[in-house]
Amino acid sequence: MISSETKIRVRFAETDAMRVAYHGNYFAWFEVSRVEMLDSVGLSYKELDAKGCHLPVLEVHSKFIRPAKFDDVLTIRACVKERPGVKIKIEYEVFCGDEKLCEGYTIHAFVNSQGVPIKPPAAFINRLRQYFD
Amino acid sequence: MISSETKIRVRFAETDAMRVAYHGNYFAWFEVSRVEMLDSVGLSYKELDAKGCHLPVLEVHSKFIRPAKFDDVLTIRACVKERPGVKIKIEYEVFCGDEKLCEGYTIHAFVNSQGVPIKPPAAFINRLRQYFD
Amino acid sequence: MISSETKIRVRFAETDAMRVAYHGNYFAWFEVSRVEMLDSVGLSYKELDAKGCHLPVLEVHSKFIRPAKFDDVLTIRACVKERPGVKIKIEYEVFCGDEKLCEGYTIHAFVNSQGVPIKPPAAFINRLRQYFD
Amino acid sequence: MISSETKIRVRFAETDAMRVAYHGNYFAWFEVSRVEMLDSVGLSYKELDAKGCHLPVLEVHSKFIRPAKFDDVLTIRACVKERPGVKIKIEYEVFCGDEKLCEGYTIHAFVNSQGVPIKPPAAFINRLRQYFD
Repeated sequence: MISSETKIRVRFAETDAMRVAYHGNYFAWFEVSRVEMLDSVGLSYKELDAKGCHLPVLEVHSKFIRPAKFDDVLTIRACVKERPGVKIKIEYEVFCGDEKLCEGYTIHAFVNSQGVPIKPPAAFINRLRQYFD
Repeated sequence: MISSETKIRVRFAETDAMRVAYHGNYFAWFEVSRVEMLDSVGLSYKELDAKGCHLPVLEVHSKFIRPAKFDDVLTIRACVKERPGVKIKIEYEVFCGDEKLCEGYTIHAFVNSQGVPIKPPAAFINRLRQYFD
Repeated sequence: MISSETKIRVRFAETDAMRVAYHGNYFAWFEVSRVEMLDSVGLSYKELDAKGCHLPVLEVHSKFIRPAKFDDVLTIRACVKERPGVKIKIEYEVFCGDEKLCEGYTIHAFVNSQGVPIKPPAAFINRLRQYFD
Repeated sequence: MISSETKIRVRFAETDAMRVAYHGNYFAWFEVSRVEMLDSVGLSYKELDAKGCHLPVLEVHSKFIRPAKFDDVLTIRACVKERPGVKIKIEYEVFCGDEKLCEGYTIHAFVNSQGVPIKPPAAFINRLRQYFD
């Protein structure tokens, strides 16, 4: 298993007229925590992207339990529980203090710069799989 | 059943460095189609909001089948298939021409301006339920 | 002179906790009106982009006079008053009914896909300049 | 004078199809640095907002010198150079390493929750003015 924690501070730009964070913005926060999770195991999303290998989102799911407000400092736990293959599933939990605000997951494939599915780069996938032996 | 169709033109602001629409933006498009679906049955999201009744998203799910690109004109079909109760489930399909790009759903509750769950306003829910008799 | 008008309906996603449209979102609306202004003179931003010629923003300015609210239908007037050279200046006015909400401008250069400044494509610039003879 | 520095890491969600950060997103970054600048002098934007006192943007200006890319770590310097009155002007500079990417300013007024201009709260403005004696 791979997991990591990221802190996010809710921007005014991310709130909506219900005075809470707009639900669509959680997916950008999931992305921030995903990038930091890969950092934490020595893998750089940016390098992967610069090499023309991308990880588009195939599927997302999220449950919103309690709202986040402007300036709340949130903790996002990202976690890979299953050994990655041609797809990777990443799970997320968002907390404000002890309260869980949201949980969700994203599923990703590997594609090249033309959007064609490719095998994940060996160095990348081997690094990830070390955590599942 | 209630259903409607909405057109969206992909903004440059909505694209990302993969040169496709960022997945998080689909949820704003779902919202646009949801508002227009309610319009189509004579219900105004804005009036509801002005009366202090809001429809926060409890849950979202989406599958991304093909990417949308800058300036693509997309058709979003929004659809309520099940009789709304204290929650409403809305399903979405996004097309570019004949190609389906995405499908998903959102589930909503009714809350007041303090975020406390409330019964849906009678006029609102009765109007919706006419389509399920 | 070149000018055109575009309609925008304010999305809930574009509002903030002041219950008005977040100021940063006006720049996406300016972009929408810019794309439609070019359409109106037979020029396609998308084709230009596909050919690897981009129009990044060098400078923006905006005054916010009155706020826009969720679901407001806004009219955006985009206008090129000065003959375009290696740069183009586009001016904008945003109205809700008769009330002016905002005015601003953007200044753009032409760059290739590597971000290097280039001369504007002859066909593009000649088409624009017809309006200034 | 008041000034402070904030770090921002460019999100993939903030990039566009030119593979650089979309210009409209800088205004959310300016907001982040504005909030942190007020923090640095012991003033809380959130508390002010909770008391029904808001700081809407009346005017923005920005020059974009070089693009920011995905995952770039940016330094944003926010600075108040002039003694605040009924309006506050905040100036910003965005750096990636030693390179200046952007400079701009925002001008703000104080309004209540109905959007009506109000005098700034005495405690707030006195705190700010200490830096200008």
